[in-house]
Parts: sequence; C-alpha cells; structure tokens
Amino acid sequence: MVVSKKISLLGSTGSIGTQALDVVRRHREEYEVVALTAGHNIDLLAKQIIEFRPKVAILKKYEDANHLSRILPTNRTRILHGDDGLETAVSMPETELVLNALVGSRGLTPSYLALKNGKDLALANKESLVSGGMLMTKLAARNGKQIIPVDSEHSAIFQCLNSENKNEVKRVVLTASGGPFRTWSRESINRATLEDALNHPNWSMGRKITIDSATMMNKGLEIIEAAWLFDLTNEQIDVLIHPQSIVHSMVEFQDTSVLAQMGLPDMRVPIQYALSWPKRLKNHLNSLDLLSIGALTFEAPNVEKFPCLRLAREALVVGKTLPCVMNAANDFLVESFLQGKISVYQISDYIERVMHQHVPFEYLELEELIEVENWTRSKLKSFF
Amino acid sequence: MVVSKKISLLGSTGSIGTQALDVVRRHREEYEVVALTAGHNIDLLAKQIIEFRPKVAILKKYEDANHLSRILPTNRTRILHGDDGLETAVSMPETELVLNALVGSRGLTPSYLALKNGKDLALANKESLVSGGMLMTKLAARNGKQIIPVDSEHSAIFQCLNSENKNEVKRVVLTASGGPFRTWSRESINRATLEDALNHPNWSMGRKITIDSATMMNKGLEIIEAAWLFDLTNEQIDVLIHPQSIVHSMVEFQDTSVLAQMGLPDMRVPIQYALSWPKRLKNHLNSLDLLSIGALTFEAPNVEKFPCLRLAREALVVGKTLPCVMNAANDFLVESFLQGKISVYQISDYIERVMHQHVPFEYLELEELIEVENWTRSKLKSFF
Repeated sequence: MVVSKKISLLGSTGSIGTQALDVVRRHREEYEVVALTAGHNIDLLAKQIIEFRPKVAILKKYEDANHLSRILPTNRTRILHGDDGLETAVSMPETELVLNALVGSRGLTPSYLALKNGKDLALANKESLVSGGMLMTKLAARNGKQIIPVDSEHSAIFQCLNSENKNEVKRVVLTASGGPFRTWSRESINRATLEDALNHPNWSMGRKITIDSATMMNKGLEIIEAAWLFDLTNEQIDVLIHPQSIVHSMVEFQDTSVLAQMGLPDMRVPIQYALSWPKRLKNHLNSLDLLSIGALTFEAPNVEKFPCLRLAREALVVGKTLPCVMNAANDFLVESFLQGKISVYQISDYIERVMHQHVPFEYLELEELIEVENWTRSKLKSFF
Repeated sequence: MVVSKKISLLGSTGSIGTQALDVVRRHREEYEVVALTAGHNIDLLAKQIIEFRPKVAILKKYEDANHLSRILPTNRTRILHGDDGLETAVSMPETELVLNALVGSRGLTPSYLALKNGKDLALANKESLVSGGMLMTKLAARNGKQIIPVDSEHSAIFQCLNSENKNEVKRVVLTASGGPFRTWSRESINRATLEDALNHPNWSMGRKITIDSATMMNKGLEIIEAAWLFDLTNEQIDVLIHPQSIVHSMVEFQDTSVLAQMGLPDMRVPIQYALSWPKRLKNHLNSLDLLSIGALTFEAPNVEKFPCLRLAREALVVGKTLPCVMNAANDFLVESFLQGKISVYQISDYIERVMHQHVPFEYLELEELIEVENWTRSKLKSFF
C-alpha cells in the first residue's frame, strides 16, 4: 500500500503552484494536498479546492475568503484568511511537507514557521533563504528537517550531491540562461521596456522571477541560496551563462570530476523531485534529446552589464542582515519596475544605495529580519 | 590513522597501469601496491619494483623473470612468471583490490580469479565483462564484491548512479569521441593506414583500445559492458558521438532528469575514482573550464560507417557465448591489423563471418569461454 505524502502548498495559484498541482494530479496515489493558499485568485482557488479537496484553503483577505465560502457552500474545506490562515497551513499536524511557492519577501515567515513546526520544506521561495539563511538552516538542523530546493539550479546541485561527501566538493557552477538581455548592450538594457524584460527566452515563470532573470538578480539570489543550502563560500560558487538552459547546474569535486544535472527546461521536473525525494517518479514529460539541441554553450557572466551579480556577492560576503536588505530592496524595486515607475538599472542603483546605507548586524530572530525589511522599504520610499 | 588499501595491479607497464601508479605515487598514504604484473617490459617493471616495493612481481616468461631477478638481486620482491604468477597476484591474502589493466582476452581469467578469491575488482579490462559478463557478475554478487569500472564512460555512469535506485533508471547514454575516422567517408576509412587509426583525437591510450576506438568496436564493447555492470537491456543503452570527450556519459531517470559526469579527458580521474571509491581524493589535475571548451556537441553514431556497433548490439541481444566470440575475434583481428595484415573493414567483416558461424550456447564455466575463444581463433586462421 502506498501511503500518500501530505502536502501544504503555499502559493497554489501562481506559476510554481499550478505546476506543482499538475505534478500531484498525475501522481494522485502519492500525494494528498491538505492545504492550499493563494492571494486574490478566488476563481482558480475554488477550482483547485473542488479538484484536490484540501482540509483548509487560505486567501489573503477576509472579504475574499468570505466570498469563496459563499461560492463553495457545501464544500468541507475550511476557508481561512491572512497570516493566521497561512500559519495554520504550515503548522497543521497532518502536514508532512510544506511547498513554499510564495513570491518574494512574503515567503519568509511561512518558511520559518514550517521549519519551526517540524515540517520538511520544499522551497521555491529562494528569498526566505537569502534573507534568513542562518535562521532557516539552524531551524532545519535542530528539527532534523530537510530543505529541498525547487529552483532548477539548486535541485540540480542537490541531485548531484545526493550521496556525495560534502567535504569533497570543490565548487559548484550555477548555470544561467542569461535572460532576455544576454546579448544586449548596456545602453539598450538601459532603455528596455517592461515587455522586453518579461520576454524570457527559455523558462515560463512568474513575473517577479522573470524580471529577476532579466537583471540577473535571480542568479545573485541563487548564489546566496546555494551558499546556505550546501554550506559553500562565495569563492566556491561560480556562475556560467548557458543560453540553452539544458545543464541546470554542476558540482566539481576535489578529484576534478564534475557531476551535472540536465534536462529540458520544465519546472515540473524539479518540482516533482522536491515532492518525491528521495524517490524519483515516472512522468509523461519528454526525454532530453541532445541531438535536437545540437550544442551546449557556455559564456562568462558580464558583471558590468548585470551589477546585481556583484551586489549579491557583496551581500553574501558581508553577510549578517545585508542579504535581507538586498532582497527586500529588490522585491520592492521589481514591483516598482513592473508598475513602470523605474528603469532596469534603477533597480540595481537603488539596491546598492540602500545596501550602503545599512549597517549590517548579526540577527537572531525572525522579528529582526522583518524590521530590517521594513527599514529597507521606508528608506527606498524616501529616495523616490 | 589512514589504513592503506592493498592493491594488485595487473598490467603495470601499460597505459592504464602506469597512470594507475601515477595515482598511487600521489597518494602514497592511501595505497600499498602488493603485486605488479607485466608482460615483457623488464626495465620498466624493475623501476616500478624499486619505487613501489610490491611483495610479488610477475612477468609473462620464465626467462624474463629470471633476468629480472638477476638485475634486482637484493630486492625482497618475489619474482614470479606466467599464469601461476598471475594467479598468485590476484589471490594473495593481503590483496583487497585487483586493478585489472590487462589488454584484451587475456584479462578474462584474472578477472574471474580475482572475484572468485573474494577481491573487489577495478576493471579496465572491459573484455572480461564482454566475454564472461554472466560469470563475473554472478561471482561478484555471490561473494559480495564490487566490480568498479575504470573505463571513463562506465565510471561516469557508476558515479551518476551512486545512490540512485537502479529501478528508476530509464536509459544510459554512452558518449563516444567518434575516434580518428569520425568525419571520414567509408571509402577513406577503407584505405586508412595503421598510422591514421592510431591517431586518436582526445585520449592517450594503448594501441589495442585506440584501434577499437577507430572502428568504434570500443563503444560496442562498452555497450555490452554497461549492460552487465548496470543490469540494462540493449534498448536502454544509447550511444551519442560527442567529439569533445568532456561529457563522459549520462544517465536518464524515469522522471526525465539526466545526470552526467564530465571532466577533461584524463584517465587518471576514473582510475583514481576506481581506487578511492566510495571516497574522492584530491589531486593535482586541472579543473574543467567549460569557457575554454566553448561548445559541447552531440551527433548520432553512423552504423553504416562503423558496423562494429551493429555487431556488438547483435551479440548483446543474442547473448550466451556470442559476445565472447565477437570479443576474441576482435582481439585477434586488431592484432592482425596492427601487424599490417588486414584493412580496417576486414576487422568487422571477419568478426561478422565468425559470429555467424558460431552456434551460441549457455555457458556455465570459465573453461567453456576459453574453448570458445580458441575455436574463434582457429576459425579465423582458416579464413586467411
């Protein structure tokens, strides 16, 4: 008899969330969804509730939750809202695994609470590790829980390290597609529109991560994420531009042997792995056909064109609360960019400015990080 | 305290043998060489004895062994010769790991005896598995011993499968450089000289395997080797031409995720891994720099130009004693080619002819394989 794994899915109506539910849909005997959380997308959440019958479902606002309750009158799913609802979703006793697919800074508290409540954490919200890596990894270690990365790059490294001795790792190589501006000049990027930035060549993703890919802050966040997940120094984390997005990342060991994980760029593969780990489940996806791809190419990243890479390495090296400031600033500024308020390079310019006004300190508690995020946002508002 | 692993090295003066001793030389605290065996290269073996101080050293012929004893009068290494000497080298109680780096069919009996005597077997002599895969894998399983591949391709797969569940493997992809004739027409290959065939683009190897690479019988042997090592069917083993020889091979799992092992083409990496497994030791070799390599490319193998690939798959599918015939025939015919007696395509033509005159049968004993090898050789002699 297969005992199904019980999952709380945070961010069920987003890009990762809907793809995660597609994985669950194709492996119904393996998983039971016990909680679904969404922001404002009432209609999609209603459909998901009918299909997956979770014990609880959460929307951000009271009015939306009320509305959802009315359109699902006979449903036995408890409808909750807000932060209390989210806390229920990550702490309910039946939950074994929390998949955190929230976007940006708002993933921090739920990641923390999931680990605190002794749940394994499948983490698509890299921002929680960037801001609170010390807190998250300590909690996971103390509770004997695993943080399983969902990012394709970190899933690749996680797979390559499966049974390897971490002391034998020389370095990791995070690959990056280079995003829509890979071949653009700095001048052209400076004039890029929102539409240009949202036009990612390989991956179909949410808007925030797509902009992060355009500025390459996504890779910067991933450098910090890798440092925490795999206990690496800045010097042990290389970045290579790999426009085909087939090699998802690599690990070099001290014997110079390199393991790489490859595949077609489809987030359902790393999502499925995060849910099924340590098993691998069959799926219906296409096999990688290297003949049809032809050539795998690699280029050095251009830090002049993509200053976010430099800022992320600075944040990693300084550590303390600086990555939290960088991440919160990026969150805020990407939103401003999406609203057409600032240009591409104003994102990195403002991040750098607020980072250099912050005096990093050793944090111990989640509340300190939340205060730092608030400080960052009000500082940024004062710049505008 | 490091307890050093005690190794018997068969074929110490050949290409793999000398590279294995280079690995040992750089990790003296890890390994103790207790036996060295060579063919006729008295001078090099004498130097190796002085440097590595094995308990026994073996040469093929009595006269050579006698000569060696005279030039090493005060040495405490016992000098033996012939098959009895080889048997001593693989069965002596102190030996923990036998590295079989013999060339061709003559590796069969020592592989068998090593496993029979309860030694782990680091196998560079793929021919033993091609001819006697059933016998070797049964013996290893019965004695709880490991066959650790030294071939770069199989080492790659072995590394990718490290902690994976073999039932979750969809297929493996063996990569092949394509050899010196990759871009040649069938007509040009037909007129190729010995010098052309010995001119391998990427790997520095012995003469037999270099000719096998030119005919692609090397990849054919490797298909059969992979089937036995990793319990795969013919359909689960793909071959891709990869001219850069950087991706040493790949495994696709049932979730479509692909793991690949990469590195610069240097046999010391897989040799070292076979000696150090399950550990990875530091070494002085250069890291892979994908920027300097630029592009990794892949092509389909051309079975018309390289009929040995077809013959090997036929031998694998039919099984029984047919791979033994194919392998013994190839051994004999490569030697004939090296002596200038036949052309490139006569190798595959004669292999096919002798394979089709053989009635394959289920074997149980080593002696049956040796008889099949003898039958193959006398049959081939009758063709000339």
